[in-house]
Amino acid sequence: MQVTGQMLIGRESVFGNRASIRAFNPSTGEPIEPVFKGAGAEEVDRACALAEAAAVAFRNTSLDVRAGFLETVAVQIEALGDALIELCMLESGLPRARLEGERGRTCGQLRLFASLVQAGEWLDVRVDTALPERKPLPRVDLRLQNIAMGPVAVFGASNFPLAFSVAGGDTASAWAAGCPVIVKGHSAHPGTSELVGRAIQAAVAQCGLPEGVFSLLFGSGNELGQALVSDARIKAVGFTGSRNGGLALMKTAQARPQPIPVYAEMSSINPVFLLPDALQNRGPAMAEAFVASLAMGAGQFCTNPGLVVGLRGDALSRFIETATEATTKVAPQTMLSPGIQAAYAAGVEALSSHAKVRESGKGITTNGPCQCQARLFVTNAVDFLGDEALRNEVFGATSLIVECDDWAEVKRVAHSIEGQLTVTLLMDDSDLASASELLPILEDKAGRLLVNGWPTGVEVSHAMVHGGPFPATSDSRTTSVGTAAIQRFLRPVCYQNFPQALLPETLRDNHPTNVSRLLDGKRVLPT
Amino acid sequence: MQVTGQMLIGRESVFGNRASIRAFNPSTGEPIEPVFKGAGAEEVDRACALAEAAAVAFRNTSLDVRAGFLETVAVQIEALGDALIELCMLESGLPRARLEGERGRTCGQLRLFASLVQAGEWLDVRVDTALPERKPLPRVDLRLQNIAMGPVAVFGASNFPLAFSVAGGDTASAWAAGCPVIVKGHSAHPGTSELVGRAIQAAVAQCGLPEGVFSLLFGSGNELGQALVSDARIKAVGFTGSRNGGLALMKTAQARPQPIPVYAEMSSINPVFLLPDALQNRGPAMAEAFVASLAMGAGQFCTNPGLVVGLRGDALSRFIETATEATTKVAPQTMLSPGIQAAYAAGVEALSSHAKVRESGKGITTNGPCQCQARLFVTNAVDFLGDEALRNEVFGATSLIVECDDWAEVKRVAHSIEGQLTVTLLMDDSDLASASELLPILEDKAGRLLVNGWPTGVEVSHAMVHGGPFPATSDSRTTSVGTAAIQRFLRPVCYQNFPQALLPETLRDNHPTNVSRLLDGKRVLPT
Repeated sequence: MQVTGQMLIGRESVFGNRASIRAFNPSTGEPIEPVFKGAGAEEVDRACALAEAAAVAFRNTSLDVRAGFLETVAVQIEALGDALIELCMLESGLPRARLEGERGRTCGQLRLFASLVQAGEWLDVRVDTALPERKPLPRVDLRLQNIAMGPVAVFGASNFPLAFSVAGGDTASAWAAGCPVIVKGHSAHPGTSELVGRAIQAAVAQCGLPEGVFSLLFGSGNELGQALVSDARIKAVGFTGSRNGGLALMKTAQARPQPIPVYAEMSSINPVFLLPDALQNRGPAMAEAFVASLAMGAGQFCTNPGLVVGLRGDALSRFIETATEATTKVAPQTMLSPGIQAAYAAGVEALSSHAKVRESGKGITTNGPCQCQARLFVTNAVDFLGDEALRNEVFGATSLIVECDDWAEVKRVAHSIEGQLTVTLLMDDSDLASASELLPILEDKAGRLLVNGWPTGVEVSHAMVHGGPFPATSDSRTTSVGTAAIQRFLRPVCYQNFPQALLPETLRDNHPTNVSRLLDGKRVLPT
Repeated sequence: MQVTGQMLIGRESVFGNRASIRAFNPSTGEPIEPVFKGAGAEEVDRACALAEAAAVAFRNTSLDVRAGFLETVAVQIEALGDALIELCMLESGLPRARLEGERGRTCGQLRLFASLVQAGEWLDVRVDTALPERKPLPRVDLRLQNIAMGPVAVFGASNFPLAFSVAGGDTASAWAAGCPVIVKGHSAHPGTSELVGRAIQAAVAQCGLPEGVFSLLFGSGNELGQALVSDARIKAVGFTGSRNGGLALMKTAQARPQPIPVYAEMSSINPVFLLPDALQNRGPAMAEAFVASLAMGAGQFCTNPGLVVGLRGDALSRFIETATEATTKVAPQTMLSPGIQAAYAAGVEALSSHAKVRESGKGITTNGPCQCQARLFVTNAVDFLGDEALRNEVFGATSLIVECDDWAEVKRVAHSIEGQLTVTLLMDDSDLASASELLPILEDKAGRLLVNGWPTGVEVSHAMVHGGPFPATSDSRTTSVGTAAIQRFLRPVCYQNFPQALLPETLRDNHPTNVSRLLDGKRVLPT
């Protein structure tokens, strides 16, 4: 399949006529053909009109049809074959093995949502039967189910060009809910986006769905994003990216005549707490594992461990020593884009020039454009608590170790951190009392708490939460990874005293799909 | 129990020192003793500090203890006896039978949430078991449950001085979730609020809970509300009231360093569609029932039918004729407060002076202060579609009938309406095709859709949705009535690779509470 530089609006392919987007090979700095031209108001209007026109038909598709569509998208992406991987390597600088794994995750995610859709528990079907004889007042038949909110705008993320981009987690969960999706493709990987978009276009046609179920637009700067989020036909937004980007979308969404939810995953430094006995007993091994997690993928993960907290002493000194030594061996890695590399350099500079921070270790010197050199910094708790700037995310392979004088200081640091995607405890059995003391503080800080692991590596499953209090995300009630992500795009509707023929299929007494239901407050499973 | 004019902050009772609040008997206009003085920054700070201090202990109470607390509150409210009803009649102008019913609903609601808490399905427990042998990567143990968001600010509503006030639905559902609550009592019924607050204080003490689980503050104007919603320790807000009031709180909540969710129920005109055959076959009977619903409680319900839509013709003329006749027989009723009466008068004036609206009927003339005279207006679809002001809620016993020339116009009216709490279809079996055509439009407009009923009268049950798209509420994903209301105050947390001893009780393998769980994607019910 040829990359053309076109956008995909429903079943059509169109060239834009606004400012150009061009991908660069981050390893060489060379431009990649073709140029993509951005969408103007006309393309936004057309994509939104198609999405609106598709919304009712798509949300009313049977669970089987919707599941079949998700599976077909996976098959069509796989059918793109190695061309997808090669172009994605070129555009992202990410290695083959990583991208093959990410493709597997992307297609696995689509298939997981397909099985979720079919099981139907996400509908949250509730039936309160009529009680015509009840005194003083009778009760009429009440039935509730969740329905799709309507067209969703999804913003592709730079750091997962497959799994959190055009057919990524936001898109898959919105479709699973029954929402048409308009994707703003990320400017760093437009060719990859087009290829995946064409696979989706084929799946929409193959499944006989209305064309407006999917469109893919490109645009440089903020104009396209703002236009999409402002459009009255868009009912929710999925975004993964910078804090400023997320805040701007939240502001626009709130200022609409009808405000809509924005699910923005923005910023997290993923603190790691080294509990005393674990640090004493196995500090050096933890330090090695820490640097491996820190350096993985040039640190370009939302869950990269950017903050480490421990009690000052010989054990922490040994941890720092080992981590420093491991850091000096980290080879330079190509970052995703010049913009990300520049932001990384600025973040590192802010730490290395900070009067209260000392640099402890530095990876092998870079030898090409757009590279990331791992960096390790150390400060103490008083200085950390005294300067909010030290809590800023540095997206890349950099971490800050905070030395605390006593346990009270550890707790103050725990209290001081902002909302996070993850918080990690490295502990031995004998640290249980300390861990129990930190836990209630940390439960308010993050969507996922880990013991003796590293936050990088996010399982796509039922119990995953990839979310957390602001500013980690804009909405701590949700997750963007795992099956619970579907809930972001649903709203409950109660049908009171409806004749069977007018009820949605899944709410009928003898519904063929036979999903789980709460019947007069009691859970009844499908037979 | 004596009403003192004090606020309740944790276990203490304190007099405020800010602007005074005084209730008036709306039937006579006479002031009611005592005066209540409002809260300043100090009282807000003290209530928030106590709530924050109580948050972890309260969210970690066992399900039994929390359920017991909800039941104890119900018992303590009942123990207030007739004094509560009499004072509430005096402050609200509502009749005894209505308030006795509302007390029953309030206590029933508390007990329903108690049983919900104990069943534990709201925890949404999910367990993905470890797969240490999985290739290419093993999976570690992942467990999810919902936890309480933290202290909640609840704004008492004027129109349900018991069921949506101090111990009403917002408070009950926030407690059920495990959140401490700070109530801003409504200025129209401060004595009722104090009595109920003292019943709660007694229940908190009786159950041995931390005092910060509940505080009750008063304040005139917006100052107290803004102070509460701005406070960093408040994590969510429940509000029922005017559109302007709700919008102001939403704005404040979004502007915080850490934005928080506001669940504001604001404005709804609850359209009723008269389908052709039903109108033809039983128009006059529907008209009688319509006016009964319209006039009930002086129309002071969020779900009052404020808009009726039908096809012009003899049948609609007969409907209007009968409704007009019924309206002329509606006796004047005392409204809740002079402020509400003034707003009603202004809303009626806007309709009666509107060039494109004709007045069709008028209830019996008022004969005292603060009374509501029922009013019925008629317009046509073109004029209705041409003036957004005609979609405004008039809180009270007034409704607008819209005559449509054809079915296409009915659909245009359906498309034009804003988000609603309810939409009703009055239909016969032979209207099924018309109803099926309207349904997909209306599903996007309201949280509850009714067939052949009246929207007033909201069942407190599992399948109820008292919510809807903006501006009916600030968050269409939620309900403020029924058991699903608990979800507003919860957020999911994933515990990865936790030792059993560190896990929350409800997530352990052999947890005594044994709640429903999703085990590796499969629903497992309690044994």
